[in-house]
Amino acid sequence: MHVYADNAATTPLSETAFQAMLPYLRQCCGNPSSTHAPGREAARALREARERIAACLGAEPEEIVFTSGGSESDNQAILTAARLGAAAGKRHVISTAVEHHAVLRPLERLAREGYDVTLLPVPEDGIVRTEDVRAAIRRDTVFVSVMHANNEIGTVQPIGEIGAVCREAGVLFHTDAVQTAGHLPICTDELSVDLLSLSAHKFHGPKGIGALYVRRGVSPASLIEGGGQEGGRRAGTENIAAIVGMAAALEESCRRREKDAAHTAALRDRLIAGLSGIPGAVLNGDPVRRLPGNVSFCFSGIEGEALLWQLDRCGVYASVGSACTSAAYAPSHVLLALGRSPDLARGALRLTISAETTEEEIGYIVDVVRRSVAYLRECTGAASERSDE
Amino acid sequence: MHVYADNAATTPLSETAFQAMLPYLRQCCGNPSSTHAPGREAARALREARERIAACLGAEPEEIVFTSGGSESDNQAILTAARLGAAAGKRHVISTAVEHHAVLRPLERLAREGYDVTLLPVPEDGIVRTEDVRAAIRRDTVFVSVMHANNEIGTVQPIGEIGAVCREAGVLFHTDAVQTAGHLPICTDELSVDLLSLSAHKFHGPKGIGALYVRRGVSPASLIEGGGQEGGRRAGTENIAAIVGMAAALEESCRRREKDAAHTAALRDRLIAGLSGIPGAVLNGDPVRRLPGNVSFCFSGIEGEALLWQLDRCGVYASVGSACTSAAYAPSHVLLALGRSPDLARGALRLTISAETTEEEIGYIVDVVRRSVAYLRECTGAASERSDE
Repeated sequence: MHVYADNAATTPLSETAFQAMLPYLRQCCGNPSSTHAPGREAARALREARERIAACLGAEPEEIVFTSGGSESDNQAILTAARLGAAAGKRHVISTAVEHHAVLRPLERLAREGYDVTLLPVPEDGIVRTEDVRAAIRRDTVFVSVMHANNEIGTVQPIGEIGAVCREAGVLFHTDAVQTAGHLPICTDELSVDLLSLSAHKFHGPKGIGALYVRRGVSPASLIEGGGQEGGRRAGTENIAAIVGMAAALEESCRRREKDAAHTAALRDRLIAGLSGIPGAVLNGDPVRRLPGNVSFCFSGIEGEALLWQLDRCGVYASVGSACTSAAYAPSHVLLALGRSPDLARGALRLTISAETTEEEIGYIVDVVRRSVAYLRECTGAASERSDE
Repeated sequence: MHVYADNAATTPLSETAFQAMLPYLRQCCGNPSSTHAPGREAARALREARERIAACLGAEPEEIVFTSGGSESDNQAILTAARLGAAAGKRHVISTAVEHHAVLRPLERLAREGYDVTLLPVPEDGIVRTEDVRAAIRRDTVFVSVMHANNEIGTVQPIGEIGAVCREAGVLFHTDAVQTAGHLPICTDELSVDLLSLSAHKFHGPKGIGALYVRRGVSPASLIEGGGQEGGRRAGTENIAAIVGMAAALEESCRRREKDAAHTAALRDRLIAGLSGIPGAVLNGDPVRRLPGNVSFCFSGIEGEALLWQLDRCGVYASVGSACTSAAYAPSHVLLALGRSPDLARGALRLTISAETTEEEIGYIVDVVRRSVAYLRECTGAASERSDE
C-alpha cells in the first residue's frame, strides 16, 4: 500500500487544473503583453483567472499580484514593509517565532539592515495571542506578519482578531496563507489583512505559481523589476498556463472546501486518536484549532529521520516537518518555540492528509507508525544495552 | 493566413518539451525536498534536468540556479553584483544603453542607492564596442552586464571579447542570454561569463521558468529567501515539470540549432530584402551580426502601433519592440540609443521568425507590411490634407 501523507509539502495537480492548463500549454501560447490576437487571447485568460482568484478571496482583481509561489509572495510582502517603513521613518516589525522561513529569513535581513524585529513567542498550543500582538505594537511599528496556519503543526491563528488590532493601530498586516488557501475560508475583508500570500501547489494547482494579495491603496515593492507586467508590481512574462491552473484549482478547492474539510478532519481525528495510543507520543499544536489535514506528533526516544525511512519502506510518505528544511537535520524552530526539548523535537512526524485519503489508509498509517516506533526503540534500546556492557 | 512572427516575445511550447513535462504534471508530483520515494523521484528529475541544462551551456550542474524566468535571473545577477560590490567597497557598475529593462530597472535602483552606474552608448549598428568596456573599467568597478543579443533589434554583442576584458580586469561579468539561449552557441567558458540569464519560453520551453548560470566560486545573492532549495541560492519549491520541460526544450534547440539557424537566417535575409524595398524603410541593427530570426525596421511617417493593428487584421502577429513594454507607447530606449529620432522610432516594427516559418509566409508578410504601410501613409496624408484645408 502507498499512502501519500505529505500534502503540506505539495499536493498532486488536480485533473480540473490540468485540463484548464492544457490549452495554454498547447494551442494558445501568446505573451499577454503582446497586442496581437494571440497576445490578446492570453491577456483575456490572465484577466479571467485574476477575477476568479480574487472572487475566491473576497478581493478585487487588481488586488492580485501573480508571483512564482509562496516564498516569493512572502519575500515581496516583507520587502514592501521595509520600503514603506523606510519611507515613513518606522523601523519596527512584528512577527512570530513559528513563521515559515520565507518570512523569517527576510526578517533576519531587515534586522541586519537596522530594523527592529520582534518575534512573538507562542505557548505550547502554538496559538499566537492577539493580546501579545496588541502589546507589541509601538508608535514606530510599520508591519505585522502572522501566518494563517502553521505548516508544521497545523495550528490556525486568530488572523481576523489580529487583523482588527492592526487596522485599529494603523499598522500594515500580512498573513502567509500558503497552508490555508483552498482549505479554510478566506475573505480578505473579514481577516482585515493588507497582504496575503498563497501558493497553488498547496491546493492541487501547479508548482511555480502563487499570488500576493495587496489591498487597494497599499503600494507593494517590486521584488523583480523590469517590464511593466502586473501593473508594475512584478516583472516577467506571465506564466499563463500555471495562472489558469491556479484559478481552476482554487475555485475547485473552495467549492469542495466544506465537504472536504469535514471528511478530512474526521480522518485526522481518527489518526490523532490512533497515534496517541503509542507510548511516548505527544501531539504538537492545538487539537481543535488546526488544519483539517494536519497531524503532528513527537515520539520520545526516536529520530524523526529514521522513522521517516521506516515509513517510506512501508509506502507511507510523510515528513518530519517543513519540506523546505528537510535536508537540515536541526530540530524544528517551530517545535522548539512550543517548548519541546531538542531531543523530543528530533522525534517529530508530520502526516498531512487530504480529501483523497481513505479510512483504510488511516488504519494502515497507525499500524505502520506503531510498528516502526516500536522497532526503532528496540534497535536503540539494543544499542544502548550493548553500549552498557 | 496566420503568421506568428513574434518569437522574441514568446515561443510556442515544443511537443518534446510538453511530453517531457507531462509525467511531472500528472503522476509524479513530489516535492524534491522531501526524503520519501515521491520526493526522491522529483529530486532525481531535478538533478537530471540540471545536468542536461549545464551540458548545453558547457557548465557544471551546480553552476545552474533555477529561477522563475529571465527577469528574475537578471534581477538576481544585479543583486549579486550589488552585494559583492558592497562587501568589496566597490560601487561602480558598467552596462549598456540597450539592455532589457530587467537589467536597467535594477541598475536604476542601484544608482538611487549610491552606486555609480555607467551605461555605455552604442553606435548606429547597435554593437557595443569592447574598447568602450575596457576604457570604462575603473579600480572600483565590481560588475559589467552586457546582453548577448538585443531583444528588439537582434544585434549580437561580442560577449567573448568583452568577457575576456572583464576577466583580465578581475571584474564580474554578466550576460543576459535570454534571446540567444537555444539560438546561438553558448559556452560559458568561451564567453568568459560569470553570470548568465536564460528563460525557457524563448526557446520553446514553458513560461515561468528560467535559470541563472553562476560560475563556481561566485556566491550569488538570494533574491528570494526562505527554504534551502537550490543550494540556498533561491528559495521556493522547485517547479519540476517546468524545469524538466526547459531541459528538453534547450537540448532540442541546441541539437537543431545549426540547421534551424541556417534556415531561419536565410528567410530573415529574404524578409529584410523584401521590406527594404518599401519607401522610407530603415533596418535597425547590424545586418549580419544579428539573431537568425530577428528583423527590425523603422518606417518613416508611420505609427508602429497602427501598423501592428493593420498586420493583426491580416493575421500577421508582430510587435513594435519588446513585449514587456508594449503597453507603453513611448519610443523604444533601444532605438533612441541607436540615434533614431523619436518620430522614426515610433514607426518601429519587429518581426521575429522561427524555424517553423515558411517561404510562403515570408512573402505574405512582405506583401501585408507593404500594403499596410502604404495604407497608413495614405490615411495620414489624407488627414494632413484635411487639416490643411
